[in-house]
Amino acid sequence: MDNEVADLPSGPLDVYRKKASFNWKDMLCFIEDEEIRAFKHHVFKTLENDPVFARQPGEDVPLERMRELTFLRVKQLFRYDFLTQEETMANPWKTVILSDCLGMYDWALSAKFFLNKGMFGATVANSGSERHMKYVENTMDMTTFGCFALTELSHGSNTRAMRTTATYDPSTQEFVINSPDFEAAKFWVGNLGKTATHAVVFAQLYTPDQVCHGLHSFVVPVRDPRTLLSLPGVQVGDMGKKLGQNGLDNGFAMFHNVRIPRENLLNKTGDVTPDGRYVTPFKDPNKRFGASLGALSGGRVSITRMALVNLKLALTVAIRFSATRRQFGPKDTEEIPVLEYQLQQWRLIPYLAAAYALEHFTKSIFMNFVEFQIGQMMKDRSDRQAEMGREIHAIGCSSKPLGSWTAQRGIQECREACGGHGYLAMNRLGDLRGDNDPNCTYEGDNNVLLQQTSNYLLSWLHLLCSLVSDGVQIESPLHTVDFLNDFHKIQESKFTATTMDQCMDSAVPLEAYKWLVCFLLEKSQKRLQQQRAMGQDRFEAFNNSQVYYCRSLAMAYIEYNCLQRFHELTTDDDTPAALRPVLRKLCSLYGLWSLSNHMATLYQGNYVSGGKPAELVQMAILTLCSQLKDDAVALVDVFAPPDFILNSPIGCADGQLYKNLWSTVMQGSQVLERPSWWKEFCSDKPVVGSLNAKL
Amino acid sequence: MDNEVADLPSGPLDVYRKKASFNWKDMLCFIEDEEIRAFKHHVFKTLENDPVFARQPGEDVPLERMRELTFLRVKQLFRYDFLTQEETMANPWKTVILSDCLGMYDWALSAKFFLNKGMFGATVANSGSERHMKYVENTMDMTTFGCFALTELSHGSNTRAMRTTATYDPSTQEFVINSPDFEAAKFWVGNLGKTATHAVVFAQLYTPDQVCHGLHSFVVPVRDPRTLLSLPGVQVGDMGKKLGQNGLDNGFAMFHNVRIPRENLLNKTGDVTPDGRYVTPFKDPNKRFGASLGALSGGRVSITRMALVNLKLALTVAIRFSATRRQFGPKDTEEIPVLEYQLQQWRLIPYLAAAYALEHFTKSIFMNFVEFQIGQMMKDRSDRQAEMGREIHAIGCSSKPLGSWTAQRGIQECREACGGHGYLAMNRLGDLRGDNDPNCTYEGDNNVLLQQTSNYLLSWLHLLCSLVSDGVQIESPLHTVDFLNDFHKIQESKFTATTMDQCMDSAVPLEAYKWLVCFLLEKSQKRLQQQRAMGQDRFEAFNNSQVYYCRSLAMAYIEYNCLQRFHELTTDDDTPAALRPVLRKLCSLYGLWSLSNHMATLYQGNYVSGGKPAELVQMAILTLCSQLKDDAVALVDVFAPPDFILNSPIGCADGQLYKNLWSTVMQGSQVLERPSWWKEFCSDKPVVGSLNAKL
Repeated sequence: MDNEVADLPSGPLDVYRKKASFNWKDMLCFIEDEEIRAFKHHVFKTLENDPVFARQPGEDVPLERMRELTFLRVKQLFRYDFLTQEETMANPWKTVILSDCLGMYDWALSAKFFLNKGMFGATVANSGSERHMKYVENTMDMTTFGCFALTELSHGSNTRAMRTTATYDPSTQEFVINSPDFEAAKFWVGNLGKTATHAVVFAQLYTPDQVCHGLHSFVVPVRDPRTLLSLPGVQVGDMGKKLGQNGLDNGFAMFHNVRIPRENLLNKTGDVTPDGRYVTPFKDPNKRFGASLGALSGGRVSITRMALVNLKLALTVAIRFSATRRQFGPKDTEEIPVLEYQLQQWRLIPYLAAAYALEHFTKSIFMNFVEFQIGQMMKDRSDRQAEMGREIHAIGCSSKPLGSWTAQRGIQECREACGGHGYLAMNRLGDLRGDNDPNCTYEGDNNVLLQQTSNYLLSWLHLLCSLVSDGVQIESPLHTVDFLNDFHKIQESKFTATTMDQCMDSAVPLEAYKWLVCFLLEKSQKRLQQQRAMGQDRFEAFNNSQVYYCRSLAMAYIEYNCLQRFHELTTDDDTPAALRPVLRKLCSLYGLWSLSNHMATLYQGNYVSGGKPAELVQMAILTLCSQLKDDAVALVDVFAPPDFILNSPIGCADGQLYKNLWSTVMQGSQVLERPSWWKEFCSDKPVVGSLNAKL
Repeated sequence: MDNEVADLPSGPLDVYRKKASFNWKDMLCFIEDEEIRAFKHHVFKTLENDPVFARQPGEDVPLERMRELTFLRVKQLFRYDFLTQEETMANPWKTVILSDCLGMYDWALSAKFFLNKGMFGATVANSGSERHMKYVENTMDMTTFGCFALTELSHGSNTRAMRTTATYDPSTQEFVINSPDFEAAKFWVGNLGKTATHAVVFAQLYTPDQVCHGLHSFVVPVRDPRTLLSLPGVQVGDMGKKLGQNGLDNGFAMFHNVRIPRENLLNKTGDVTPDGRYVTPFKDPNKRFGASLGALSGGRVSITRMALVNLKLALTVAIRFSATRRQFGPKDTEEIPVLEYQLQQWRLIPYLAAAYALEHFTKSIFMNFVEFQIGQMMKDRSDRQAEMGREIHAIGCSSKPLGSWTAQRGIQECREACGGHGYLAMNRLGDLRGDNDPNCTYEGDNNVLLQQTSNYLLSWLHLLCSLVSDGVQIESPLHTVDFLNDFHKIQESKFTATTMDQCMDSAVPLEAYKWLVCFLLEKSQKRLQQQRAMGQDRFEAFNNSQVYYCRSLAMAYIEYNCLQRFHELTTDDDTPAALRPVLRKLCSLYGLWSLSNHMATLYQGNYVSGGKPAELVQMAILTLCSQLKDDAVALVDVFAPPDFILNSPIGCADGQLYKNLWSTVMQGSQVLERPSWWKEFCSDKPVVGSLNAKL
């Protein structure tokens, strides 16, 4: 199955490539089937061959121009129409792959493209009804351009506290959209800065009787599609520069009694009759609110994947750099690649293992999500479907923190591991860090989201007590909590590995994680009870049980989950035998390395004791790093995009580190010219102290 | 002593300011004496009142313009001449304060200013002789502009492997400076990109007999000061955009047989006679090499301080934001500041404690360094002076990693803790992160530097064995290793605190750190011996003993050192009694929080056992965070610069978070205008799929 995957250019990386214990093309074909590989190749080649997408590494592009370029590229994506509606339905994974490809090129492009069709279009389609289909259709060919406006200047996490109002006026059958003050301005809205013509605006719905029915969403035209000028009563603008993704125009909007037709209410969860009565299929307003935000859930699963893509790019750069950068050596006359140093291996290779773990994990939870979505589309009202919703929610709320933080730390480590060259903008590690950062924040701040996951787990503990007495077994739809059936047995378990070899089996960290989740679950529960017993109300007790308890619990659960799925893959008979050894090493390394952050807790709860276990884990990590260092280049070859997409001279596939770096420097604008302001140096010399007004 | 410190503007932060347990003005006066306060005030006010230093938060400034602006500002600094040579000599601390002030405004400005006078000027003065004084003088009034060229494209850490050559030609009495190829181009040289006229170039010195005498430094003119055009044979240019500090023009240079007079050799450590004989006062070439690089040592102490300044700025932004940003609350009708949440406290307040610990630490080690420098100037040839040199080296090589990593992580935490608003460029957290990053890399990669520190400590362990048998006590000039006299007793010691209250005394983490250093010292030594016993050569054994051993040892040593000095301050009778309680809390928190990263090692070595110690430490950390949250605003008021310098709307002293943010957004360029490229949206609509060439 090799012959269709093109060879990589020969060069200094060959040494490592030849030493690899597996065939990178086989690994690639195992991870991505032929259809996906062909699709990726097509997208990458198309971008590379189109001058609209041309760019220079590290170019200094003004903000306004960056936004223009991104817009022009989005427009071009409409022309390419890489993925039709039908193709998406036939293979939803392709949407993820398209997002991967565009994101590898530039996340701002990907965001701008998907916010219109995905966030705006999908929200209107899911939360609205037949009467809103024209809005969805108009996004398809750029007749209009959409955005999603939830967050306000003074409110983000606390979505219920949004203060924009939509008051129904039966005399004209219109809603009046109003921002009470600038603190209620919609803020951070992607696409709204420069280009959006329509927004899905979340606002508190008021009927004429002055009753507030809670947050609802409305389609609000904000700019005239013929002129891009803002519409009367709408103050809309650009928020300015961000730490990354500057091709995306995030914006704000204030509404001064803007009137929209009654029909613009997205009425799936509630509607207002022409005469102003509120009607809803939901009895419980909490349930309605949950359902209206339900559309957001898929986002977190996608963000986990986006973070992974950033980590892959950073690792490609840092590993290829480390394999070609030589510094010091056993003799003065001969220097060795920095990848040969234990320290460099330990800094980078665990993140490489994490990338492989997350590769499988993000695919696997996406498939879970698709299963859930199909149930929703089929209007499955079963308990299992509802339960799967809760489980997916718990996974998404912790997988996003796991993915985004792993990428954040990994990119930073890659940046530092490339030394000074990592600090040069052209090598892209800065952009990756800046572009990855919002993954920690949007669609829910990581720390806040983790609370959802721990709440889910705590609810199982409550149930467990009653179930056990009934002899019933826990079985969650995605089986991520089934091991809780052995809660008490697991709590009694101990670390049993006595040699480093034993330790190098991923079953060892997996068992430890089970214990860890159970331990932290019980600890969290006790902590909550203690706080209540001390007279704290629910709000206080909950807040005071996060650090060291609920937060750690949620992280341990998702790390366990990620490890467990990877562990299954490496032991699965369907996994090619030739690839299993390296995958097993990666899995063990990921497990042990993640676990090593919890080592103190393992001691604290007496799962391990004495000096040996910590030492075994450490030795196993170092041994695995050293065993994997000859595979590292091949492992990044598997997920590295073409050089044009990677856009990092020190990370090129040919490994010509210095040639590529030097020529990129030389291709820069006005590199060798004296500065335009040279006279400022040569004449008008400062008189030292001439402005010195002493104290 | 209050009345001379101006009050801060009243506003939403007052609530916290009133709750503070201490008077922030007293703290300020304790940390900075009247002279320093007046000096800072003068510098800050001068910059604020001068339009040359005017700027808008988050402005999008093109690279070329940023370099121009920074140059113009440097020129203005010559006119202000804030610190004369005499003032610097009278109070060396003022140089640090000037660097703090300029850095708080913009690190690129500070770097550009100090690289000329400090790096170039001081190196010429220290490594040259009388004949070079004209170069130093010319930097004083900008007749010339200097830079320091050591690093090459393919060599950084391994300074000895630099490949630029300086070959003496007796026929013309000149050195011929040559770069053998582009991989030997000087790279990363600050000021060289646009403005430097002269460079200190490090090159391998060859005499006519083709003998290489190792790395020496030469003054090489690179640009004509009258035109800023490069000189014949010199290819000099700008490296382009970096992840931060873009006002500083880092550059590269290739030398094509450039001839310079014999006298341009900086001849303190070696000279060439007119007829081409090499003469040196040093017998041992290693010693000569060490001495020629000795000039670099002070840099690391300064960088530790620079990192601290970044941390202070980020904390000012994040703490003021957290005290005014409200989200959720016990009731739906009332939201509480996010600083009230345990999680937010735990994310930020330990870094606040670290900032106070590092404030004292950086001052204290600077004074150590001054003492050492005075010895050098006095030509002190005593053993004590040499020993102090080694100790200062060990401190600087680990204080830089401690400072730069603490700042790196702290700034990232601040960024995330400010949510979306932290991601807006105008709030400066991105710039702080980008500007702090090189502190981890230049003047020695952090991980590489730590090896110097662990080597120093291991050399004491060797000595200890022989000393003990002689009954001699270890006494290092700065006393940072004196506790090793009790090496064996300390190894036997255990964690004795049994209540949280006991744990909240900084003596507890201090004792634990002593044990930790001794434990890791012995472990590292054993590891090295094991590796040698397995047949590895010194190079290998050394490299394979870094992770979990030598590296951890060096970090533990410097954390101990920082904690120990802070502990002494909080127990010192000269510390005002009214300030001691809050300082003690900060000290305990810093100690426990730092120690908590080593908890697994404490268990591993049986210093602690059972579940209780970890729990006590955790509870003490949370309790201290909660006790300090009402002091947090006052604690940042102490070190916050004026709003103009801080340049972050969400961090202003008046706490008017949203007003300041909103008005800065509104002041942005073309905020409300439609984009110049609006027609690209309105006409030339894309035909969907028109470019679709299916696979």
